[in-house]
Amino acid sequence: MKQIETAVQPWLLTPGPINTSMSVKQEMLHDWGSWDDDFKVLTKIVCDQLVRFVDDQDAFVCIPMQGSGTFAVEATLGTLIDPNSNSLVLINGAYGQRMTKILDYMGRRYVTLDKGDYEPPRGEEVAGILEQNPDIDQVLVVHCETSSGILNPLAEIAEVVERKGRRLIIDSMSAFGAVELNCKTARFDAVISSANKCFEGVPGFGFVLVRKTMLDECKGNAHSLSLDLYDQWQYLEKTGQWRFTPPTHIVAAFNQALKEHKEEGGIAGRFARYSRNQQRLVTGMRAIGFKTLLADQWLSPIIVTFFSPNHANFNFQRFYDLLKAHNFIIYPGKLTQAESFRVGCIGQLFDEQIDGLLEAMSAVLKEMNIPDGNPNR
Amino acid sequence: MKQIETAVQPWLLTPGPINTSMSVKQEMLHDWGSWDDDFKVLTKIVCDQLVRFVDDQDAFVCIPMQGSGTFAVEATLGTLIDPNSNSLVLINGAYGQRMTKILDYMGRRYVTLDKGDYEPPRGEEVAGILEQNPDIDQVLVVHCETSSGILNPLAEIAEVVERKGRRLIIDSMSAFGAVELNCKTARFDAVISSANKCFEGVPGFGFVLVRKTMLDECKGNAHSLSLDLYDQWQYLEKTGQWRFTPPTHIVAAFNQALKEHKEEGGIAGRFARYSRNQQRLVTGMRAIGFKTLLADQWLSPIIVTFFSPNHANFNFQRFYDLLKAHNFIIYPGKLTQAESFRVGCIGQLFDEQIDGLLEAMSAVLKEMNIPDGNPNR
Repeated sequence: MKQIETAVQPWLLTPGPINTSMSVKQEMLHDWGSWDDDFKVLTKIVCDQLVRFVDDQDAFVCIPMQGSGTFAVEATLGTLIDPNSNSLVLINGAYGQRMTKILDYMGRRYVTLDKGDYEPPRGEEVAGILEQNPDIDQVLVVHCETSSGILNPLAEIAEVVERKGRRLIIDSMSAFGAVELNCKTARFDAVISSANKCFEGVPGFGFVLVRKTMLDECKGNAHSLSLDLYDQWQYLEKTGQWRFTPPTHIVAAFNQALKEHKEEGGIAGRFARYSRNQQRLVTGMRAIGFKTLLADQWLSPIIVTFFSPNHANFNFQRFYDLLKAHNFIIYPGKLTQAESFRVGCIGQLFDEQIDGLLEAMSAVLKEMNIPDGNPNR
Repeated sequence: MKQIETAVQPWLLTPGPINTSMSVKQEMLHDWGSWDDDFKVLTKIVCDQLVRFVDDQDAFVCIPMQGSGTFAVEATLGTLIDPNSNSLVLINGAYGQRMTKILDYMGRRYVTLDKGDYEPPRGEEVAGILEQNPDIDQVLVVHCETSSGILNPLAEIAEVVERKGRRLIIDSMSAFGAVELNCKTARFDAVISSANKCFEGVPGFGFVLVRKTMLDECKGNAHSLSLDLYDQWQYLEKTGQWRFTPPTHIVAAFNQALKEHKEEGGIAGRFARYSRNQQRLVTGMRAIGFKTLLADQWLSPIIVTFFSPNHANFNFQRFYDLLKAHNFIIYPGKLTQAESFRVGCIGQLFDEQIDGLLEAMSAVLKEMNIPDGNPNR
């Protein structure tokens, strides 16, 4: 059996799990009783802070959900969507597609606007579909689609959905905490995210911020006991506890992550650092010869897709392994039509790591005997 | 907002989350890329070891599932049970009841043998029901029902289920790792457990050991994408990865927990320590005047239910708070007919902690002006 090497901490240039600070991880050196008041207080502190990011009027509640982000998405769709209603799912990548897969499992109706690998769904397209389908109750959209790295035009979509009097459910898994999302500037009914993305916690739970008036109507909708968001909310309200065993250590780490998020200047501060990472990365990669999939206006500060070098010597696994030998872990591409790879900008990454990665990229191209990042494109 | 105190580590005398060793927790001081080979190796090491506890013939596979133990139970029932089949659920507490609740959500048929708060379901009763209901395909049983602390008579139930040619699914959440469960000595088809019980890991995922021949037939059964155990298995087989983001830090901690489990002598070693904890606890509590709910033959080495003192001064919350001031966290009772509380024997607990708890119990009774643990019973 291969030996696991844990001594060296690699830099994770991925969409999450990401590098967390040592002070966040150190909060996991304590065991909590999940039934105990101390842990109830911890849960409340975390949830109250998360609500404040979207709303200061108590119109929203925060409901945590054990598992990965997808568990939180499924809990949201299963619970908030009336089983007899119709939904519009906006798709431009894997996470939009995953929402339709979840709806398929539950046998719920939907129509899609599928823009392929990376084109953004636009407000006017959404308006057209909503006009033609008066039975659509809610629109489901992915905020930052990490398949391509695109930041979808949420403001124009939210404006159309509000004007047409429908509900908006946002999967903001990889953007929330670093991209502004406030119910005063865009109307939405639910936002889903997770501990191990822009808030820089460790993976193990997700959370949903839901408009209270929407929750009131959804008792009995859920297809699953574990993923019944209404039941989780009711139990939390009544007892202060999660319904089933929470990932206690991870919640404690997240509480510390929220403190550090605040110290960095909250969403604006984190947006600034991630944007700086992204610009430094894109500028440096272009200088080496790599090309981004997206035009600058659609690039997110979360993750960037680059075309793989169009060279006979290029092989992704070897590229990955060589970069890993330099201590950098990148992410494979997810495009259906072109070879690509992705580089994340989130987590405890700063100028030093971005510069280090750029140096490693140049070195690895040399090791692979590829003259530059993207010849012949 | 109340200040959270993390400096002092309380002793958790609960059914989990439990006290873990510092060396287990320290494994969480490293960030892993979930897509990376190092983490794939880690997952494989963990799963291979878990299979070995029930089987050395490769008849079983281990499928991990994100979330709490209930998520793993729901994934198992949703995936392994043919939606058109009938099930027999053996109930003597909250976890048996929870399985029926899960089946209700999924709209699956079942009959129950409900023995109330703590009576054990017996082999001959199961045989009678299976004879009367030839359409029952599987029997669902809880190994250690922590509601009362009873260790159910698994051997006689397994013998009957095998003789009648049905399948057996065991929720061994709180017993597996400390109570022997080997497919050579009792026939079963699936065992469900979790990271934060007798293996002494931290909470965040569960796992299911499933007979491969059973898995082969259950594609398309699942009611949920996130909880589709078949899909999780297939993806793991194909890629070595979990389908959706795993709780990386918790898997790393669990790997260390398995090493320490082995060092303690595996299941037999842990059974010995927990049994010693339980006997020391029960002997000491009886000396103070407390009475156990169950006769000795049904007591598990996992958790013990004691009747609350039948005294006007007794109040559980005050009792709990005073014990907590002595640094011991106990667990509330779950009986419908009598006031009770529970004390766990699992986790990093040794003679010193049991003795400390017993001293604290005596001290707290004095503080509450209650003459002994259980007068007038």
